[in-house]
Amino acid sequence: MSTKACIFDVFGTLVDWRESVSAQLSKAFSMKGIEADPHAVVDAWRGRYQPSMAPIRDGTRPYVALDDLHRENLEFVLAGAGIARHFDEGDMAEMAHYWERLEPWPDVVSGLTALRQKAIIAPCSNGSIALMTRLARHAALPWDCILGAEIAQSYKPNPAVYRACCDALRLPPEEVMMVAAHNDDLRAARECGLKTAFIARPTEYGPGQKADLQPEEDWDRVVTSIGDLAG
Amino acid sequence: MSTKACIFDVFGTLVDWRESVSAQLSKAFSMKGIEADPHAVVDAWRGRYQPSMAPIRDGTRPYVALDDLHRENLEFVLAGAGIARHFDEGDMAEMAHYWERLEPWPDVVSGLTALRQKAIIAPCSNGSIALMTRLARHAALPWDCILGAEIAQSYKPNPAVYRACCDALRLPPEEVMMVAAHNDDLRAARECGLKTAFIARPTEYGPGQKADLQPEEDWDRVVTSIGDLAG
Repeated sequence: MSTKACIFDVFGTLVDWRESVSAQLSKAFSMKGIEADPHAVVDAWRGRYQPSMAPIRDGTRPYVALDDLHRENLEFVLAGAGIARHFDEGDMAEMAHYWERLEPWPDVVSGLTALRQKAIIAPCSNGSIALMTRLARHAALPWDCILGAEIAQSYKPNPAVYRACCDALRLPPEEVMMVAAHNDDLRAARECGLKTAFIARPTEYGPGQKADLQPEEDWDRVVTSIGDLAG
Repeated sequence: MSTKACIFDVFGTLVDWRESVSAQLSKAFSMKGIEADPHAVVDAWRGRYQPSMAPIRDGTRPYVALDDLHRENLEFVLAGAGIARHFDEGDMAEMAHYWERLEPWPDVVSGLTALRQKAIIAPCSNGSIALMTRLARHAALPWDCILGAEIAQSYKPNPAVYRACCDALRLPPEEVMMVAAHNDDLRAARECGLKTAFIARPTEYGPGQKADLQPEEDWDRVVTSIGDLAG
């Protein structure tokens, strides 16, 4: 194929952050004897994701790794749930690492392994190099290298991130394919000249998910498993 | 072990650049019917390595990837050997990629694979992300991520490079071990607070090698194979 590299959104596209984080929260709550809904807490935590990156995208805050944003956002979310008093600094530092221990969707590891025979594969995530490295070790994601927000010092969908990934690979954008379960991510990648592939992850946000159930543009590929990209 | 990550010099420490590049030069020379000593040419090419990085280290030239320095240096070297007229732009662009196709020393792949069970492993090379990524695919180096000069936008032994690797991993330097066949590289890493491991590669520069045959300081580890680091 003329695609020399495939770069991937990770949270939601490759790993089930909602169930993985809520399972870890659930364990922490039960150890502390807290009655709280872990799904509600992870939803609130993820709800702070986009707003916390906004000032970095628009340049009003210098780049801060997502690990630190996760930590900051957690404090806010635990307070909102009325359970902040149960957690000290050490607990919260440990809980920020929950995002390094996320389970892949069932098609991911075999699919990436097959695809890697044909193209360079790398994450293009808003996660830091450290976070993506540890997550790859946890979930056995066989990356060739770690690209994404940190090498651009900004956050998707800022075009700087997609461009930095192509530049780091020394490839023109038309030889790089962005793979994501989110139409917005693909729109931004296409504007930078990258090829695009959509995969639906209809339960990323739980059973009531409304967005990103379908491709919203004529993306270059629409697949139902990561392994299909290798075909 | 308290070492959470091992970062590696690559050229010479893990791969035999001299024999690998000279084998590719040899093929190119014979296809063009050129009588020239490929070992002399690769030695001259590598001889330009340090001088070409110097202005970037001292800040008088902005960061340029090693891929580009290799390409610039090749032109100079072919001219010096009196054979530049045989090579056009396309030839030289292709020849710069020789550095992506280097063979590992025999202990490297099994050693890194074993070590990876115990610690994060990554290159801390002057090679670019693109170069290190393609070399890893060629030589089956099972990296967790690609660190090194490019994320620091400078060249070793500038301390910024070792520090950028630790920062990218979100680890304090004392939890990171630099592994190299070059005493100078380890001296610079130690000054940044990293742990150090030396492995001799007595034929890196060919049969008459004089430097780096022995450890010159009390490095934290002195090993005879990469696999020994896992022990």
